[in-house]
Amino acid sequence: MNVEVVTIGDELLLGFTVDTNAAHLARELAGAGIGIVRRSTCGDAPDQIAAAVKEALDRTGAVITTGGLGPTSDDLTKPSIAALFGRAMKFDDAIWEELKIRWKSYRWPGGIPESNKQQAMIPEGAVILTNRHGSAPGIWLEDERGRWIAMLPGVPREMRGMLADELLPRILERARKTTGTPTVVASLTLRTIGIGESALADLLGPLAKGPPGLPLAYLPSVDGTDLRLTTRNSSSDVALEKLKTGASQLRAVLGEYIYGEDKTDLAAVVLDLLRERKMKIAVAESCTGGMLGARLTAIAGSSDVVVGGVIAYANEVKESQLGVRPDTLREFGAVSEETAREMATGACERFGVGIGVAITGVAGPGGGTPEKPVGTVCIAVAAAGGVKSTKVQMIGDRDEIRRRSAQAALNLVRRTLAQA
Amino acid sequence: MNVEVVTIGDELLLGFTVDTNAAHLARELAGAGIGIVRRSTCGDAPDQIAAAVKEALDRTGAVITTGGLGPTSDDLTKPSIAALFGRAMKFDDAIWEELKIRWKSYRWPGGIPESNKQQAMIPEGAVILTNRHGSAPGIWLEDERGRWIAMLPGVPREMRGMLADELLPRILERARKTTGTPTVVASLTLRTIGIGESALADLLGPLAKGPPGLPLAYLPSVDGTDLRLTTRNSSSDVALEKLKTGASQLRAVLGEYIYGEDKTDLAAVVLDLLRERKMKIAVAESCTGGMLGARLTAIAGSSDVVVGGVIAYANEVKESQLGVRPDTLREFGAVSEETAREMATGACERFGVGIGVAITGVAGPGGGTPEKPVGTVCIAVAAAGGVKSTKVQMIGDRDEIRRRSAQAALNLVRRTLAQA
Repeated sequence: MNVEVVTIGDELLLGFTVDTNAAHLARELAGAGIGIVRRSTCGDAPDQIAAAVKEALDRTGAVITTGGLGPTSDDLTKPSIAALFGRAMKFDDAIWEELKIRWKSYRWPGGIPESNKQQAMIPEGAVILTNRHGSAPGIWLEDERGRWIAMLPGVPREMRGMLADELLPRILERARKTTGTPTVVASLTLRTIGIGESALADLLGPLAKGPPGLPLAYLPSVDGTDLRLTTRNSSSDVALEKLKTGASQLRAVLGEYIYGEDKTDLAAVVLDLLRERKMKIAVAESCTGGMLGARLTAIAGSSDVVVGGVIAYANEVKESQLGVRPDTLREFGAVSEETAREMATGACERFGVGIGVAITGVAGPGGGTPEKPVGTVCIAVAAAGGVKSTKVQMIGDRDEIRRRSAQAALNLVRRTLAQA
Repeated sequence: MNVEVVTIGDELLLGFTVDTNAAHLARELAGAGIGIVRRSTCGDAPDQIAAAVKEALDRTGAVITTGGLGPTSDDLTKPSIAALFGRAMKFDDAIWEELKIRWKSYRWPGGIPESNKQQAMIPEGAVILTNRHGSAPGIWLEDERGRWIAMLPGVPREMRGMLADELLPRILERARKTTGTPTVVASLTLRTIGIGESALADLLGPLAKGPPGLPLAYLPSVDGTDLRLTTRNSSSDVALEKLKTGASQLRAVLGEYIYGEDKTDLAAVVLDLLRERKMKIAVAESCTGGMLGARLTAIAGSSDVVVGGVIAYANEVKESQLGVRPDTLREFGAVSEETAREMATGACERFGVGIGVAITGVAGPGGGTPEKPVGTVCIAVAAAGGVKSTKVQMIGDRDEIRRRSAQAALNLVRRTLAQA
């Protein structure tokens, strides 16, 4: 069974908002064995919505839309699609009652705004998809030929909840009835760091296009380069087995360049290593300004091994809060392996932890010199075995340099702990 | 002049990567008066690429693609589109020489990998779009009827550079020749915080759908709710004037809820206020773990007013590094306005700055209690005039709660400084 996704909204079409819903929908559907054959985005005009949805229906017969269900004047999805299906709009009392209850829990002064009445209007013959995470209900509409459209809200949290609670079970039930058990598209991603896309391909040699029957995709980002193996199979067990075998072949060649699989966060890998070794960590950040701490604490449960750290943006703070010697700053500069090493050691000592990690660099766009151009970043890790440091030249803009720096620091912690 | 955008890649279609390129392209094109009428995404298969591009060409005659120009086996855009146009592929010596020079600057051991030769293959009759930011050159291909396709790389930094340097000037020149000066689509966004979407609509009353001739879009996110006014006009001066007038009408109603326009970052607003008042800031973060510091230092030039701070994730760190009293922690708990106030005061004192801001909360998913459920966040700001604090109930998952907390803390700093 194949579906198309149409995301609706001027803010998406004109690029004011990045379309994260489309990615989430695609991932969830593909994982359930539902094929996505095309994704489209159109603006908030009724004719644009009708045209994009009609083309998708004509191609595939099964369409999911997001967006345009809210209470405001630019929310036009329901009437546009109702018109396409030749259905009138009607006011649904039950939806209105539920909306009033939901707003009571918000404790908004004055109760539910009148403008929300639009959310209780639905096309005739529509099935309601309950929204447990927000106010706009979703809609399932089907024509006499069995072609269907599911309309989901645009707010990501609401869309995700409704997809899981209401829509995916309904689509899977339908797929089983019409086409039997769907073909599963399964994939496995190996996450690498410290090596570029084409160097990976060369290192892989005969495996560069993937093991037989398992095409390989290269996905570079600031986190490193992900390698994704994909397979199609009627059984997810068989597919998983094939993927595991293929992944072992790649692992045998790439070794330590691989830090995890699928969506594994390098920060989570580091936290697990810390737990295994019963060690706690503190950070000392200059150019990343807290980003490394934020990465580590983004993982739920990190408080058992992360105690905190110092954001040492100003040089005085490097001295007063981390004990970096004024001589070191004067002689080698704030962006130097020497300073990074003293920051890491200082973090260990001040916070009484087994491992300290420090970052200091030139994130740009200003502040570069011929000796230390923008992107020069020094990273150090202090632990019982001594202090390790490295100087790296990062590419990209300020944000990318900072994100690559945090990731590289996590990698240095990983490699230090792996050898500990 | 209208164009369509087709983004290519299994990683986009299957949702492994969020399509930020599509948003950037749309924003840049719309800002230059080029209309985007549809966006589509297809997978890496040659027939999918050919079908999506052919449909877009038939609808609009002008298509920009991203992705599939890299050196690896899943990069199929050029041959698929060459086949659609009935063109052969040829090896381009000049591109190969340039690639070799670029790789020298990378100092990669062993020089350029052989697999990069694929990047020097181009369709016959193609025009090269130079890539100053990476290795894959872009391609401009035109048929005998004047319909064209521009192929850009998928790596965002490379795509953005090539769009600005090479493609946009070429499209604008063409638009001028064929259709005269294009109609400008101009928009202005007012960024609000501290009020929800439908409450904004109610507060705006007769302006809820926008001032006459200026449709209004509501764009909620973790940063608050953005209000976007859009207008179409042949002159960008006239369009700008209309937008300014409309924005003043909204400002008159919404007042302090508005913190900036367009892409203004609340952190940048705070930095400017600090500069005006010649004050420096330090942060004290528990549940956000460095995210607030990262927000402030994400802005280039922040070092003149941001000295740093403490990531006080563990309670011992709140005591030892910020001077929070053990009694306070025991009596009120780590997540309390009392603790937040002592953290903020501690940040002021330890870092010798005029303003300190603190966040402590339950980011979840674990750690909630009936009295302090997940999402309970306390924020405090300490300054010469005293200490302000607030307790907020944030909605969303761990990441959203943390991001909303950092944004709410910035807003409390903004409101404190605005009254200072």
